[in-house]
Formats: sequence, structure tokens, C-alpha cells
Amino acid sequence: MTDVDIKPLSEERRLDWLRLIRSENVGPVVFRQLLERYGNPAAALEALPDLARRAGAKRRIRICPPEEAEAEAKAARKAGACLVALCEPGYPALLRSLEDAPPVLTLLGEAETFAPPCIGIVGARNASANGRRLAERIAADLVTAGFAVASGMARGIDTAAHRGALPGATIAVLAGGCDIIYPPENEALHAEIRAKGAVLSEMPLGTVPQARHFPRRNRLISGLSLGVVVVEAAKRSGSLITARFAGEQGREVFAVPGSPLDPRAGGCNQLIREGAVLIESAADVIEALAPLHPHGQAVPPAPRSLAQPGAAAIPPAPEPGNAERAIIEELLGADPIAVDEVVRLSTLPIAVVHGVLLELELAGKVERHPGNRFARLYKAPADPL
Amino acid sequence: MTDVDIKPLSEERRLDWLRLIRSENVGPVVFRQLLERYGNPAAALEALPDLARRAGAKRRIRICPPEEAEAEAKAARKAGACLVALCEPGYPALLRSLEDAPPVLTLLGEAETFAPPCIGIVGARNASANGRRLAERIAADLVTAGFAVASGMARGIDTAAHRGALPGATIAVLAGGCDIIYPPENEALHAEIRAKGAVLSEMPLGTVPQARHFPRRNRLISGLSLGVVVVEAAKRSGSLITARFAGEQGREVFAVPGSPLDPRAGGCNQLIREGAVLIESAADVIEALAPLHPHGQAVPPAPRSLAQPGAAAIPPAPEPGNAERAIIEELLGADPIAVDEVVRLSTLPIAVVHGVLLELELAGKVERHPGNRFARLYKAPADPL
Repeated sequence: MTDVDIKPLSEERRLDWLRLIRSENVGPVVFRQLLERYGNPAAALEALPDLARRAGAKRRIRICPPEEAEAEAKAARKAGACLVALCEPGYPALLRSLEDAPPVLTLLGEAETFAPPCIGIVGARNASANGRRLAERIAADLVTAGFAVASGMARGIDTAAHRGALPGATIAVLAGGCDIIYPPENEALHAEIRAKGAVLSEMPLGTVPQARHFPRRNRLISGLSLGVVVVEAAKRSGSLITARFAGEQGREVFAVPGSPLDPRAGGCNQLIREGAVLIESAADVIEALAPLHPHGQAVPPAPRSLAQPGAAAIPPAPEPGNAERAIIEELLGADPIAVDEVVRLSTLPIAVVHGVLLELELAGKVERHPGNRFARLYKAPADPL
Repeated sequence: MTDVDIKPLSEERRLDWLRLIRSENVGPVVFRQLLERYGNPAAALEALPDLARRAGAKRRIRICPPEEAEAEAKAARKAGACLVALCEPGYPALLRSLEDAPPVLTLLGEAETFAPPCIGIVGARNASANGRRLAERIAADLVTAGFAVASGMARGIDTAAHRGALPGATIAVLAGGCDIIYPPENEALHAEIRAKGAVLSEMPLGTVPQARHFPRRNRLISGLSLGVVVVEAAKRSGSLITARFAGEQGREVFAVPGSPLDPRAGGCNQLIREGAVLIESAADVIEALAPLHPHGQAVPPAPRSLAQPGAAAIPPAPEPGNAERAIIEELLGADPIAVDEVVRLSTLPIAVVHGVLLELELAGKVERHPGNRFARLYKAPADPL
């Protein structure tokens, strides 16, 4: 495994990156595995149909055609957006270090927004006036201290955080396309962020966000950030999920406490009980982060290894046979199971297990779950009527 | 050092305990040291004048005369109160384990109030309506779960905690005498606590509390308790001091969080940042204490050693000479210094250092500070006018 060599891509090579991530059953983790196995996206695209067929895909998986990728790139140019691949210098450094970092981002706005160390601020949509005031103040104080502030441009705390940060650097991470504004009353805010900060998404322009996109979006907010501040959050809320992601990603989790009598404080108080840092101000955040950026500079974690586009491929793992594939398929069920467990139970070499799971995922026969766990995808039973 | 043998005292022996603690320059720690050295209070009372003189006391220190102790005991009986010495069965078990536990307590009320495991609840005098509601609810839920609740009968949180706990066991710890009611509007509450719970003080009946009595009173609240709950407290408040005492005494510290915009939450939020357990309800307290009382039973820490009244005295340490006394006096200044540091700097045996410090304290020449530290007491400079 080698560290990623950061360099700009030609337009043509960038389209290979785009085609691979827009192909069927290819998510960010599969993308990275394909890159490690085949060395560059073009080679992976060639190998894709065969890999999926080996795992028993009933039909050819859909590979994104060149024209489609070209059309996406053209639409982005037309909208004033740019596409940035993970290996390019414009890609946010901290985000790059995630195992499941998006291979290609669409960006609207100023590239230098990603230069300062970033803090995420998230919280309730139905935030109280006090909660909004706190989020705005914390955001304003953070940008004054030289940080950027990332949030999700939702109602409530997100909106307040962007507003507070607008004199400085602020990043809106959207679940749908960069040009799809929700809630509609944030149109002016979107324009301001675009003009002074940055709007970012891993989805193509024009994508209308769906429920399943929001957890991914939340992972990007925390992934961009040294830490995430939760301002108001009920128990069992989306902000709590973001905070848990942040913890899993090794990011600091900060929570603003509140009275037990206020249901919007329940989630934050719970986070603090679970180990989040209690904060009352931007100064508390900065103090807690001091060891991470001793001279006001973010020190991003060492980037994870990533094969180079065009670099020599790592020798591929021995190709799994049908016997091994059968053993592994047998072990998988509707409940997700950890890869380590599959290795232990199958007694197969770890490289073989990873190879089979990659093929099964491409074939749409298994689904990847958080924590490197896999579940089998079953067809719904035929309707008896 | 031997564990304390719990047994009732005769009226006469109890008066020896009372005389010793009511004598000049004898505080609870000196009391314990004298008991360890002389085996019983009567022998310590005899040795007292000589000890103080050796350290250069200009005049005989005042020893509480028998008539005075008898009068205090008689007044207590008349008021329906009783005196309990530390070695007696009626003395609260957890409190007994403190190094500076009061040798004699005055009690009004029901002895069985001390049977259940106890939780202290403290907080702001100028508490908010929400804060009072929370304190009352937490206290009520704790007594329902079989705990007793101790507090200081002050305005605000203390009053609410006692009220909530009144259907069960509640203990009011007063800074002055058990019969001195402050604030005056708590007269009815005092009568109810006395009837259904217990009122406790280390001071004689009739003592009007002074500012310096309150920190001691706070130590008794936490000393009685497995843990202390702080409900509302500003930064730099008395409740925070109680919480710090509790931590030093090895008691659990619980704090109810609040909004950073509410100054009455500042102290609680700070405690949580410093490691206190964030709680929102009695259930949270009970859960955190579960390891300490697995079957709903308090398991008090093993009592500290204590010589027996009437037991054979521990062989006294070698009597310090004038040379050693001079070395130690020289090392002490207006800033408190730890005993360990005195031992290190003087290179004298630890027993000799303790002996000299005991004499100096009895002679009124040094003052004991928290953390086993000592400072020299200087006379105020003569008025130049």
C-alpha cells in the first residue's frame, strides 16, 4: 500500500474516475479496492464486467458510459462548478483520509475555503432561539480564530452556523446536487456561501436528495472536520448519528449541554455522557483541539494508502474459485457479519475473502454495512396473490 | 493502627469525647491524632497542656471544663437532641470513615434516617423554578428507590431537595447548632425534617453559624453521602466547593447540565468538564452508583483506623527535642506547605514531624489547611499609630 501521490488529472483521466464511481454497485469503498487491485480507474472499468459475472450476476452490471460522464462534467462547467478527484490537490485533505471518501466531488465556490482547519456544526432543525444564537456565535468565533465551519445548510442550527461563519470560510455539504437548494428559503444563503465559501456534494448536479443520502452527507461533514459541534439535538436524531460517525472517523465530538427539562438537549447530554467534550463556546472547542493544531494549523491524519491512477498495479490476489465463493456465500445471511468473522469461519485467506466480497458486492448480491460488515441481499419473496 | 470498635459509650466517657473536641486548638484531625497517641480522650485531656507548652504556647491552652461539657449534654437532652460519639453505633457509618470526621455529633430526629445509603443534593440559593423542580423530583425519586437525601437546608435547591425527600429519609446538615433555623421561612421544614428525618451538626446547640462554618458543613454533607448531586451552581459558588470536597473524599460527583446561556449552569457544566457524571434524573444517579451498592445496599469504605477509648495506647513517638522543633518551625511560612514536603526538607522522621506539628497546632502556632498542609500563624503587626 502506498500513500496517495497528489497531482492534478487530465480531463480524460478525471472522466475515468467519474465513470468508475458512477457505475452500478461501485461505492467509495469498492472504488478504493478496485484502485488498489487494478492501479487506475481505466483498468478497473475494463475488469468490472468480468468480476461481477464471476460472482454470478444474472445480467451485466451497468458501467457508466463515457458520454454520460462527459455530460456530467459539461453540466458542472456550465453551472460554474468543478469536479475534483480524490488524488487532486483541490480535494479537502482531511476528507481524503477517510476509507470511504468520495472518489469525485462536485464543488461550487472558492477552493481556498478548504485551506483552514475545519469544524463541523450540526443540530436540530427545530432549534430554539437560544440554540440558534449559540450556533451562530460559536461559528462566528471559530472563523475569527481562523477555522472554517462546515454544516449541512438545513433549517435551524445548520443555517445559523453558516450565517455566523459567513464573514469567514464556510462549507455547505449537500445531500443532493450542489444546485438543489433545500429548504427553499435558503436560496440567498446558498448564493452567499457559494460566493464567499464553498458548496460541496458527491452527487451529480441536479440530484434530488433522498432519505438515504443524508447519512452519507453527515459523514462528509464530519469527515471534512477536525471535530463536530452538536448544538441542540433530541435523543435519536440525525445530529446524533453525525456525532457517532465523527467518533468512528476519529474526529473530536463536542456537545453543548442543556437542561434535562428541554427535550432538544437530550441528545447533547447523552453524547457528553458517552464521552463527547462538553463545550460552552468556541474557545472551549479551540482549547480541546489545541494538541491537533498546535500552531493554529490543522495536522490532518496521515492519508490512507491509495494506488495511483496510471501507477503499476499491486499484484492481484489469487483469483477465488467457485468452491471458495460458495463457502463465503453460505456464511452470509440477512444479518450483517464482520469480514473478520467470515475469515475466521471460512478459514480462507483474508485476500480471498476480500476478493469474493468485492465480486459479490459488484454483482449486487451483498450489501456493505458500517464497520466492515456484509449482509446478503435477498430478492423479496414473490407476491402470493 | 486498628479498626474502630463500634460500641456505645457510658455518659461519662462520652463527656470525655465532648471535652476534648471542645478544647482550644483541637480540631477533628488533631483529636484523632491525640486518640491514636494516648488511646482515649481522658488521657489526651491530661496530656494536652504539656504538649502545647512544649511548642512554646505563651499561655495554657483552654481545656473544656467538665461542667461545660455536662451543660452542653444537658441542654441537648432538654432540646430532645442526643450526642453521638464517632465510635458509637448511632454515628453515620460513611461519615465515620473521613479522616476529619467530627468526633461528636448533635442529632435531632430519627436514628434510622442514617440506615439507608445517602445521596447529597446541593445547589444555588437563587435557583430557578426549573432547578427547584428538578432537585425536588430527583430527591423524591431517590427516596422512592430507597436512598436517603442529605442537604444543607439553605434556600433554593437545598430546600427543594429536602421537600422532595420528605416522604422518605432526609438529613439536614446545619453549619450552626441544630436548633438555629436559617432561613427563617424554613421553620416548618425544620420541624418536618426533625419529625420524619434527622437534623445534624457538629456544633453545640445555640451556635450561630459563621461564614467559616459553611465549608465544614459542606464536607459533612458529602462525607455522609455516596455521592453528591449539584443541581444549579454558578462558577465560583459554594456548591462547587462541596463538589470538590466530595471528589477529594472519594465520593461520586453528579452534575445536572444546563444551557451555556444560563449563568446558574456554569458551575455544573464546569464540573462535568472536570469529570463529574452528567445526570438528568435519579435513575442516572442510581445507575452510576450501582457498582457501589449492587443490591441496593451501601457498602461504606472500610473505616479508617482509630484508637479505642480505654484501649491500650499506641507507644508514643519519640518526643521531639527543641532542635527538631526549631528546624520545622523554620520551614513553615505564611503559605501552606505539605507535611511530605516538611519531612523531605527537614530530613526528620515522619513521626517526629507529625509530633511537632501536633504540638504547634495545639499551641495555636500553625494552622491546618486542606490536603494535609500547614501554615504558620503570625501575629498581626502592631498598629503603628
